[in-house]
Amino acid sequence: MEEVRLLGCWSSPFSRRVEMALKLKGVEYEYVEEDLVNKSQSLLHYNPIHKKVPVLIHNGKPIAESLVILEYIDETWRARYQLLPSDPYERAGARFWAKFISEQCMPTLWKACASSDGELMAEAVSHLARLEDELKGKRFFGGEAIGLVDLTAGLIAHWLPVIQEARGNDKLLITRESFPRLTKWSEEFCGVDGVRENLPDKEKMAAVFRMMFAPAMPNDPAKYVPKV
Amino acid sequence: MEEVRLLGCWSSPFSRRVEMALKLKGVEYEYVEEDLVNKSQSLLHYNPIHKKVPVLIHNGKPIAESLVILEYIDETWRARYQLLPSDPYERAGARFWAKFISEQCMPTLWKACASSDGELMAEAVSHLARLEDELKGKRFFGGEAIGLVDLTAGLIAHWLPVIQEARGNDKLLITRESFPRLTKWSEEFCGVDGVRENLPDKEKMAAVFRMMFAPAMPNDPAKYVPKV
Repeated sequence: MEEVRLLGCWSSPFSRRVEMALKLKGVEYEYVEEDLVNKSQSLLHYNPIHKKVPVLIHNGKPIAESLVILEYIDETWRARYQLLPSDPYERAGARFWAKFISEQCMPTLWKACASSDGELMAEAVSHLARLEDELKGKRFFGGEAIGLVDLTAGLIAHWLPVIQEARGNDKLLITRESFPRLTKWSEEFCGVDGVRENLPDKEKMAAVFRMMFAPAMPNDPAKYVPKV
Repeated sequence: MEEVRLLGCWSSPFSRRVEMALKLKGVEYEYVEEDLVNKSQSLLHYNPIHKKVPVLIHNGKPIAESLVILEYIDETWRARYQLLPSDPYERAGARFWAKFISEQCMPTLWKACASSDGELMAEAVSHLARLEDELKGKRFFGGEAIGLVDLTAGLIAHWLPVIQEARGNDKLLITRESFPRLTKWSEEFCGVDGVRENLPDKEKMAAVFRMMFAPAMPNDPAKYVPKV
């Protein structure tokens, strides 16, 4: 009997992208919510290096780092739904964009939202413009169906608008006018079965982000740069 | 007729790891040295997002980002030498460590060498200790033969000692006493066919690093944090 367990956090886009992948693949799993302020022994044991969610535990063996987990899921449950294309060149393209989103877009977007710094905002916009270009003539980053890149970009579709609103930025980065393809992609992505039921409640998230960005908050929000 | 071209830079560990992979796989390729101060039209055309080496061009189609290229090489020339294991769990482990080396070790090592800051040095040592642990009972990170993780860690074996010497740090991070397994691994790794002939000349490298770390240098060496 196969045992699949996920240590996650309801508000984490990294944890949610793994849940989406499991749902798309139709893999049954047990979900364990982690309290990141008071991490469980289980989390510290299974991810001693990063001590972060998500961690997938498959038949007792842990896998950490969301992008590594997504590739593991794709290779382990091969027959059901494909997260990466079969062709090596197309796979390389998907990995390139997933890396770009994780390592360039997400940290810049987070820092830009946290600081409202003009230069960072401009950099964030230029990254988003790259993604807008990449969507040319495509429904999803993965083509006709969502794949690794779409799951990686989930933050842009669902989390970013909430963060921006909580932060009180009056100039939203993504609008129908500024990024029509990303807007359309966001709407379609959020409606896909497997994704829709894994999008955390916006009100609940907004409360968390408002607290995080409150002026009295002793911590520097820039420290919260999400890690993949 | 297959055409394989690599845009690289002789001193870059990112570019060299791709050459090593091609050599291990026995793939014939044309090497094009890039002048990173005066980038070629070819580099700007084939890697418009990052404008960095290495770029592999296979039958006219470019692939950027060294780790993405390594996976592409492994998937494209399957029959000859294996960079990643076959088992999905072991593959996930290799990807985890390659990511750890690229995203945690390398930037910290670079910044620690550039600044000689005590806290950064301690962080670098703690990262190296993780790798020392991982080598327990193994000849290479990949087991009996080198693989993706070894190629990713090449900087530690060959570049780091030169950087430290050029920087004038009297306390070398890796010695036979402090990290016996990493020392042994470094020696063995540098002797492997395919690797050996792709290690840049130490004297030539030292001259570059001495210039980079010279007090009169107007640029902040921290800016040179290597990107994968």
